Amino acid sequence: MAYDDQNIFAKILRGEIPAIKVYEDEKTLAFMDIMPQAEGHTLVIPKSPAVTLLDLDPEDAAYTIQIVQKVAKAIETALERKGIVLMQLSGEEAGQTVPHIHFHLIPSSVHQLGKHASQMGDQAKIVALAEKIKAAL
Amino acid sequence: MAYDDQNIFAKILRGEIPAIKVYEDEKTLAFMDIMPQAEGHTLVIPKSPAVTLLDLDPEDAAYTIQIVQKVAKAIETALERKGIVLMQLSGEEAGQTVPHIHFHLIPSSVHQLGKHASQMGDQAKIVALAEKIKAAL
Repeated sequence: MAYDDQNIFAKILRGEIPAIKVYEDEKTLAFMDIMPQAEGHTLVIPKSPAVTLLDLDPEDAAYTIQIVQKVAKAIETALERKGIVLMQLSGEEAGQTVPHIHFHLIPSSVHQLGKHASQMGDQAKIVALAEKIKAAL
Repeated sequence: MAYDDQNIFAKILRGEIPAIKVYEDEKTLAFMDIMPQAEGHTLVIPKSPAVTLLDLDPEDAAYTIQIVQKVAKAIETALERKGIVLMQLSGEEAGQTVPHIHFHLIPSSVHQLGKHASQMGDQAKIVALAEKIKAAL
């Protein structure tokens, strides 16, 4: 699948639209999901223009999963609880909604997850959670 | 969390109980989930004794995600369809059932997944799918 550089995460990466960021380096960005499936739902994305895990450069995958680990630890510390679901949807057929690869980190039980990308969260609460996660990084 | 070397995946890694394997190298193993949430549900695990993604050595995480990519591609080729859900549950609180880190690759939509670890699949069908995936690797 060809990469569409007008997707919302590409715009976030270019700074054209805002995001509630918790971590950024040369190769990756982590920010809050504004339609959280549970409190503390965070996304980690590589900056390279790939649509799915299947077409992401393996070196970028290797780097990004380490940032996923780092952010997951910070989420557990920030929320003072255990249990994180990592989810990555490759392809529209899998339920992927934004065509830039993203790893979901959802502090919840897989059996209690809200529906994927279904409704907006309380933005003030999300900003406060982001501050806690940043402080734990 | 301390690693329990009597968990079922540790036993599979030691060859004490069987598994329907699709890929193996020095550091990782991929095999069919015998309680599939969808047809073709495959697990990829690092051989190092970690319980969750949070306590997996970052180098092992980096290596394993590349094998996850490789196996995901083979699943799409074997099943001749697009769309894969990657899921990794860290912690009992997240719904993790076997205390050895594992990445789920589920060729399905996230909105249509069967319940996690709920019922045995048709073993003959699973073996046939494994053969197809192996052939595509």
